[in-house]
Amino acid sequence: MFLKSITGGNIFFVIFQNWSYCFLNIFQGSWKWGPDGHGAVLLVNCDSETSKWKRPDLQQNYISNESDLKDMTKMVLRTNGPTELPEDPHTVERGRASVSKVEGCARALSQEVLYLGKEAETNFYVEGLQFADKGFDGLITINLSLFEPIGPGIPERPIFTDTVVLRVSPWIMTPNTLNPIEVYVCSTDDNNQFLRGMRSLVARSGYRLKICHEYMNRGDRWMQDEMEFGFVDSPHKQFPVVLDSPRDGCLVDFPYYELLGPDFGYVTREAHKREVNTLDSFGNLEVSPPVTVRGKSYPLGRIIIGVAFPIATQGRNMTQVVQDFLWAQKVQDPIALFSDWLCVGHVDEFLSFVPARDRKGFRLLLASPDAGYKLFRRLQKEGYGQSELFDGQYVLNEKPIPVDEILEDEVLRDQNNYVQSCIDWNRDVLKRELGLDEGDIIDLPILFKLVEIDQAMRAVAYYPDMVNMIVLGKNLGIPKPFGPIVKRRCALETEMCNLLEPLGLNCTFIDDFTSYHQLQGEVHCGSNVRREPFDFKWWNMVLDEI
Amino acid sequence: MFLKSITGGNIFFVIFQNWSYCFLNIFQGSWKWGPDGHGAVLLVNCDSETSKWKRPDLQQNYISNESDLKDMTKMVLRTNGPTELPEDPHTVERGRASVSKVEGCARALSQEVLYLGKEAETNFYVEGLQFADKGFDGLITINLSLFEPIGPGIPERPIFTDTVVLRVSPWIMTPNTLNPIEVYVCSTDDNNQFLRGMRSLVARSGYRLKICHEYMNRGDRWMQDEMEFGFVDSPHKQFPVVLDSPRDGCLVDFPYYELLGPDFGYVTREAHKREVNTLDSFGNLEVSPPVTVRGKSYPLGRIIIGVAFPIATQGRNMTQVVQDFLWAQKVQDPIALFSDWLCVGHVDEFLSFVPARDRKGFRLLLASPDAGYKLFRRLQKEGYGQSELFDGQYVLNEKPIPVDEILEDEVLRDQNNYVQSCIDWNRDVLKRELGLDEGDIIDLPILFKLVEIDQAMRAVAYYPDMVNMIVLGKNLGIPKPFGPIVKRRCALETEMCNLLEPLGLNCTFIDDFTSYHQLQGEVHCGSNVRREPFDFKWWNMVLDEI
Repeated sequence: MFLKSITGGNIFFVIFQNWSYCFLNIFQGSWKWGPDGHGAVLLVNCDSETSKWKRPDLQQNYISNESDLKDMTKMVLRTNGPTELPEDPHTVERGRASVSKVEGCARALSQEVLYLGKEAETNFYVEGLQFADKGFDGLITINLSLFEPIGPGIPERPIFTDTVVLRVSPWIMTPNTLNPIEVYVCSTDDNNQFLRGMRSLVARSGYRLKICHEYMNRGDRWMQDEMEFGFVDSPHKQFPVVLDSPRDGCLVDFPYYELLGPDFGYVTREAHKREVNTLDSFGNLEVSPPVTVRGKSYPLGRIIIGVAFPIATQGRNMTQVVQDFLWAQKVQDPIALFSDWLCVGHVDEFLSFVPARDRKGFRLLLASPDAGYKLFRRLQKEGYGQSELFDGQYVLNEKPIPVDEILEDEVLRDQNNYVQSCIDWNRDVLKRELGLDEGDIIDLPILFKLVEIDQAMRAVAYYPDMVNMIVLGKNLGIPKPFGPIVKRRCALETEMCNLLEPLGLNCTFIDDFTSYHQLQGEVHCGSNVRREPFDFKWWNMVLDEI
Repeated sequence: MFLKSITGGNIFFVIFQNWSYCFLNIFQGSWKWGPDGHGAVLLVNCDSETSKWKRPDLQQNYISNESDLKDMTKMVLRTNGPTELPEDPHTVERGRASVSKVEGCARALSQEVLYLGKEAETNFYVEGLQFADKGFDGLITINLSLFEPIGPGIPERPIFTDTVVLRVSPWIMTPNTLNPIEVYVCSTDDNNQFLRGMRSLVARSGYRLKICHEYMNRGDRWMQDEMEFGFVDSPHKQFPVVLDSPRDGCLVDFPYYELLGPDFGYVTREAHKREVNTLDSFGNLEVSPPVTVRGKSYPLGRIIIGVAFPIATQGRNMTQVVQDFLWAQKVQDPIALFSDWLCVGHVDEFLSFVPARDRKGFRLLLASPDAGYKLFRRLQKEGYGQSELFDGQYVLNEKPIPVDEILEDEVLRDQNNYVQSCIDWNRDVLKRELGLDEGDIIDLPILFKLVEIDQAMRAVAYYPDMVNMIVLGKNLGIPKPFGPIVKRRCALETEMCNLLEPLGLNCTFIDDFTSYHQLQGEVHCGSNVRREPFDFKWWNMVLDEI
């Protein structure tokens, strides 16, 4: 008996040889993580072979196209025995092998397989129907049993059972440090300025720009929030899979009707409508670059979501069905941050990751009111106290405000103290959970203000929230902050360049003021990036799950 | 900040010290298995402090007795700071610490704790309300956060959060190799003979015998089937816990009304009545002695249950709620055997474990028709072909049968071939899953016959099923087989003694023929043993769960 391990897409059974069999140690009828692991891999067949009347293939009860077999894991039943089964004195029928029960999903399937004699092969194609989730650990067990008839009135006797265990590929997110493939933005009747900036940045960076037009987006510009790109991987096949948020704004149809297709999968989790809130938008779902934390390696990074404060009894949270799904994928062990202090409540409002040549290969960028105040105080000291934030932006409905006035505003200072505490609280969690040092973090000068929402005071960015950027390789598309002009240049832009250019990054400031910032979002909220998958194979992770 | 680890029952928080704090590496706000693990332990408070109007303490919403606090884990909130919190220019109230959210159970609790100033301690008692189960991994997270008021119209700012993770003690079964404490049997109007045998055996072995009388058992003699003894363990407290089977025969009240009490816990899992079948009796729930399997250590042994054949679509299974409970306990990773081939369908009909001084410290005993036939053929060869099984047992409604006649019966031979295949199939699983060699297994000479039940042919023991024994240290209480008399001694008894006495075991044969065997059960089915808990501490297990 022989089971080809993870390295290939094929699973072989040899059902018997000279009527004896043995278990190889490598196999063990189980699944084991890591480079010395074993077991097979299958994909959830969530793409659609046909792009016309499409729906995920797993919902079809027929094979629409031979190419669909490539999304399944080939399982070979290989017999290696005598031409005919020897006749026991009591044998009245031919022997037969019976395959299989699939555990872990709701259905238990069983099929009888005739013994084909001598050296024969029967091909099976194993199709994944669902991702790991609460109540399904992603493991599928297939048993093959050989029975021998004994005589009338006596059940057939089990000769042996062979077992193969497959694990469904997790859905894997792609951090900012991976190379982009395609950038997605919406076109609306008021975002020309923004689109111009994005078009130029993406073209300059050498990637594809896909524009979702108004007939499809119906005015919903928050491309980040409706969906998250990820991928599934197996030794024989790999394809991108979009996770559709239960947010379901006017962009609701985009992931299904525009993205699902041949070798482009689709998955979603539905929640009760009344449970869905702004924290369910996927600006609140990010992923770190690969990290090692106290000796534990996360070669695919860690998912980051935002929720209510740990002791809160009433706060807003990401809906449980999505949290369950994310945790069940296991390979990017999620971290829950406190984001409910923000009006919109998304983690991308206060953090981002950019690639870096040194240290851990990246930096964590954090919004920092303290850094903002430090900068403004320096400007005042240097004699630029009368330089104005939003200089000349009356046209944008924002009254210009001199640096001196910002620094005098004690309420604003108190509000930003609070915001800084909230970000610091998350900074501690991120340092601990991602194994970061202070040197891995860059504080960006960003102020917030508190506004009342649902009888609670929550934060919004005071000027364009520069941490909410798009990362395209070394090129960053940063919300144009409209800060005080110092020596004919925006002092906030200057500061950003000073902080980020030494890492080999290029800063492009994109004007999203009226079409995004004033609607409480920025560049990152209004865009999405599909990236190349990791080279690292998820089944090589060393998981020690508790 | 300081968290006392597993070694004690106390958990300490120090909420701050000079307004700074740090996380100790040993702590990490997480729970880790193994001798180098960390995290705290709590017990499900499933005993009853009062024995009069009893119900498990966890169902009480008050502390009925100070002794009840001993079943809980003490958590100390220790402040170590200035006498008064320093007044921020904007501080309008005293600081306060807020504890805690309990995750993992349905409720999220939060309580505000006043800052007591300087060095103060507040005691909390953490009570476990449920065992790990499907959907609850047994981990409970308690967060402590310190907030500081900033000013009117601004939320209090979070200074820091400290986290402690506790794991609920699993329910742990006790194998035959552990020392007995108490033996339980039923008294019925027809089992005097059996009771005499048991009373004598238990007295001789030096253990307590507890007899459940007829007013309580209402004729239900299957003491093994209604319940399983286990225990829970923590550094500060340990007590036995009875798992009540959903079988719910006439013995249904016994575990709750006779066993539940101070420091004697009770847990049950309820299933839909129509789902419950004979495989839900706990003769079908056993546990192996400690084993090591391909380098993986199971210092508390492995649970063994019986189910349908893997590819069966219609077979009988142990009900899912009980299986879920058993798997969720994690520390005795269950093995599912094929027991549905038996009429009654219990694993204790074909296997048992006995202590041994050599090898792995135990032997697996298996019923073996092959060993039975081998013995009978030898008897025939030695000239005892006319010796009779059930000799002189006309009185027991069994017609004596000569050895020659048994060996001539081809239908019986075919039926036993089938039975042997079923046991061999399980033998392979047991060897693989318990890491056993052939030398660790002893085959007991036992024949079966097939009878029709629910349109299927299933097996019952042909003569008393000697593997279904009670194990009391070195003393075994074995069903008296009534085999052929050879040299004035039962040849089956002789064979059993030859097989078992070299291990240092003493065989006592107990007549259970009319009162148990003819009702399709034997000594083990009709008894139960509460044993001493393991010395090994479950949290020292090295678990690498997938």
